Amino acid sequence: MPKHIDLKKPILDKNDSMAQELRQRFADSGVYVLDLLAGPGSGKTSTILATIDALRDEFNIAVIEGDIASSVDAEKIKAQGTSAVQINTGGACHLESAMIKRAIDVLDLDRLDLIIIENVGNLVCPTDFDLGENAKAMILSVPEGHDKPLKYPGVFQVSDAVILNKADTMPVFNFDEEEFLSSVKQLNPNAPIFKISATKGDGVSAWTEWLADEIRQAQAGAVK
Amino acid sequence: MPKHIDLKKPILDKNDSMAQELRQRFADSGVYVLDLLAGPGSGKTSTILATIDALRDEFNIAVIEGDIASSVDAEKIKAQGTSAVQINTGGACHLESAMIKRAIDVLDLDRLDLIIIENVGNLVCPTDFDLGENAKAMILSVPEGHDKPLKYPGVFQVSDAVILNKADTMPVFNFDEEEFLSSVKQLNPNAPIFKISATKGDGVSAWTEWLADEIRQAQAGAVK
Repeated sequence: MPKHIDLKKPILDKNDSMAQELRQRFADSGVYVLDLLAGPGSGKTSTILATIDALRDEFNIAVIEGDIASSVDAEKIKAQGTSAVQINTGGACHLESAMIKRAIDVLDLDRLDLIIIENVGNLVCPTDFDLGENAKAMILSVPEGHDKPLKYPGVFQVSDAVILNKADTMPVFNFDEEEFLSSVKQLNPNAPIFKISATKGDGVSAWTEWLADEIRQAQAGAVK
Repeated sequence: MPKHIDLKKPILDKNDSMAQELRQRFADSGVYVLDLLAGPGSGKTSTILATIDALRDEFNIAVIEGDIASSVDAEKIKAQGTSAVQINTGGACHLESAMIKRAIDVLDLDRLDLIIIENVGNLVCPTDFDLGENAKAMILSVPEGHDKPLKYPGVFQVSDAVILNKADTMPVFNFDEEEFLSSVKQLNPNAPIFKISATKGDGVSAWTEWLADEIRQAQAGAVK
């Protein structure tokens, strides 16, 4: 698809230069930014809620919710007492740095330690877009199937951490954990893989301890 | 996102005019074309396998598989004894009519009654692209959650039929069937909704009987 890439290039270049500005702004304010990617219904919002629960005593957290339409996710986050800004992309299948720039206008960056960006539910489009984040993490849920790394290699390659959610439903589905882990390691040998059940809490602490370490390191000056 | 729409318009116009050519070619050959949309891991391939099983005695069927990468789905279809053409989009999150035009070069259209196109696993990108199909159908699977019509309204609006797959896993997930059905009916009052379990076979016959009727009507001359 060379035609596609030509059309996308100027958009990506513009996006990346604004993302660099954002990255500097986040570093200056000492706020760590996580861009969370996943397909629809893999449990992004539940994972964010569990992450906030684990980290809220140590860190001040805000969430930016990206959706094609609706504000149901932002409402769930707010109901838990955390600031949430909803971005509706109006059809676009990913967030761009310009949208993040507008969204953070309403946040007090200096007061925050962590911003979690819930990207649009999509395993394809968001992978190309730098949002000025410190790290991208991705979620695959067990019901989606163990063959997804083969079919959506890009998102597994760009992610700094991989979360396997709804792990408690493995007995219900025909999920080959060994094959999944080996495919992910082939695509991305360095990313840690966390097996969790976000709604039940299983395995969440390994993920949140990893994230807390990343935040502490960034705040100690080792900003990516 | 007006900038986005401007960039997409020439691509869409070019896509649509080629889709019209394809539609005429399909009609001339008496082949009915179904474009099947869904997110990753919702059971598109399993639904196609169950559909072929139910309809292969009456109709000659071929499948066009769209994926970012890999040919695992086409191999599953071929293992069942059905012709399958794999399209790898190389990063693009949807199929376009030009890709379908190349794919059908290897198919004998006059010998076929039904082509099922398995689009790229994505609830957003494929909705805008006419592939010359007679109908679009979409699958949502229970583990993805009952709130998806609110978050991805476009795909529910463009679909001529909605399949709710993995219905047997409702007890495992917190799926509010009533809310799901009412959201779908608000977005698309005319689309029939089929509750199925593709791998177990439950409910599949209602879906395949609907599809068989559509094919018979189209072949009788009432081409869309």
